[in-house]
Amino acid sequence: MADIQDILLNRRTIRKYSLEPVDDNLLVELLKAGCRSSTTGNMQVYSIIINRDESLKKALAPLHFNQAMVTEAPVLLTFCADFNRFNRWCLLRKAVPGYDNFISFMTAAIDALLVAQTLCVAAEARGLGICYLGTTTYMAHKIIEVLRLPKGVVPVTCISLGWPAEKPQQVDRLPLEAVIHNETYKDYTDEEIEKLYCEKENRSDSMQFIEENKKETLAQVFTDIRYKKEDNVYFSKVLLQVLHDQGFMNQ
Amino acid sequence: MADIQDILLNRRTIRKYSLEPVDDNLLVELLKAGCRSSTTGNMQVYSIIINRDESLKKALAPLHFNQAMVTEAPVLLTFCADFNRFNRWCLLRKAVPGYDNFISFMTAAIDALLVAQTLCVAAEARGLGICYLGTTTYMAHKIIEVLRLPKGVVPVTCISLGWPAEKPQQVDRLPLEAVIHNETYKDYTDEEIEKLYCEKENRSDSMQFIEENKKETLAQVFTDIRYKKEDNVYFSKVLLQVLHDQGFMNQ
Repeated sequence: MADIQDILLNRRTIRKYSLEPVDDNLLVELLKAGCRSSTTGNMQVYSIIINRDESLKKALAPLHFNQAMVTEAPVLLTFCADFNRFNRWCLLRKAVPGYDNFISFMTAAIDALLVAQTLCVAAEARGLGICYLGTTTYMAHKIIEVLRLPKGVVPVTCISLGWPAEKPQQVDRLPLEAVIHNETYKDYTDEEIEKLYCEKENRSDSMQFIEENKKETLAQVFTDIRYKKEDNVYFSKVLLQVLHDQGFMNQ
Repeated sequence: MADIQDILLNRRTIRKYSLEPVDDNLLVELLKAGCRSSTTGNMQVYSIIINRDESLKKALAPLHFNQAMVTEAPVLLTFCADFNRFNRWCLLRKAVPGYDNFISFMTAAIDALLVAQTLCVAAEARGLGICYLGTTTYMAHKIIEVLRLPKGVVPVTCISLGWPAEKPQQVDRLPLEAVIHNETYKDYTDEEIEKLYCEKENRSDSMQFIEENKKETLAQVFTDIRYKKEDNVYFSKVLLQVLHDQGFMNQ
């Protein structure tokens, strides 16, 4: 058993998986570990949808922009903020739930994300590989249809899970001092920003990225191509509508 | 080194800490492990505020409803959704950031929460104890003032961290089948809800909880005392205003 610190420091996101299935008992073990994560007031206001069938994975694939992992991974897990179950329990017990509002969505989303990340760590410690699908919040409205999520349930993130069939280079990270602040937030000077992003900008893969995308700077690849304002504005409207439709905007 | 699965399954939230400080090198190790978590597009749109000084912890304490951990733990870590640093970099690089909207807040909040939970697992594997402070989203507006968070930065969660000075009973969890769904969401029948919550309701600590709070059912302790509608409505309005004020509601 490798040291957990080594596992965490050496991890890579895995997007290609072998054909070997993920054993049911192993998956249950990972789910149980995930569900020991902290949860607000021990309410456990989350649900996990497990997809292994080809047909559902195929239906979900376009909602995740046809990323290959969705159909190629043996397991997809969609982590949802879920007050439906808790509300149902309240109503059966002469209790009037007041969780149809934004703070309750955030509480449930936090619950779901902590479970997701614990499960990912447990999976990676067992040698499995995972990839988060950021498309989940963009396409929540369509995922809700395919997974038949009732009111009170919103998908927050999704991971693909399987045995690695690749060992990619580890991606870069900003130096630790870029993301930590002692006691209070110290806003960055231009010189500090230059220094903190210097290594990232000078990597050969970043240079290639700029060239392939015909841009002048790496930052422009993000703002003009990968995470564009017009897309963000659109997805923001859709997600806020989803929160409304699923019953979380009644404050 | 214990097996990670055992660590995850046997964990308890720790609210009482010994006077022993958390070594700087150990804290850096934990932070580095946290920052290897998945992050959307490798943007790392989060920041971590480290509080160890008495004065700042005292200023934060009432914002966390005077929970004793805030002043008694040697370390407090506040995890923030942070597009400020990334925006600053874009502006220095002739790139126009389009991240002043709700989906960008969610992206950054997810980033921050995955880092937080990886750090917690790393800490617990080293024998440290943690407690999440759900008050962070309730009092985000005041935490922003104390920690001097600029526009583009919103606190999402906070943990207290230290060496355990207690070994509490492990709290209950719903049976795994309560929170998982195969392929699509199967909504619960009343009978299923009864069965899934039966063990929780019949625990002696639940019974005591009902009695102490002079309620008829456990669910009423949640709806009428711990997580009341009027509080949720109020905190929802405040948090949405925070998102507006910090520049995430311009869709």
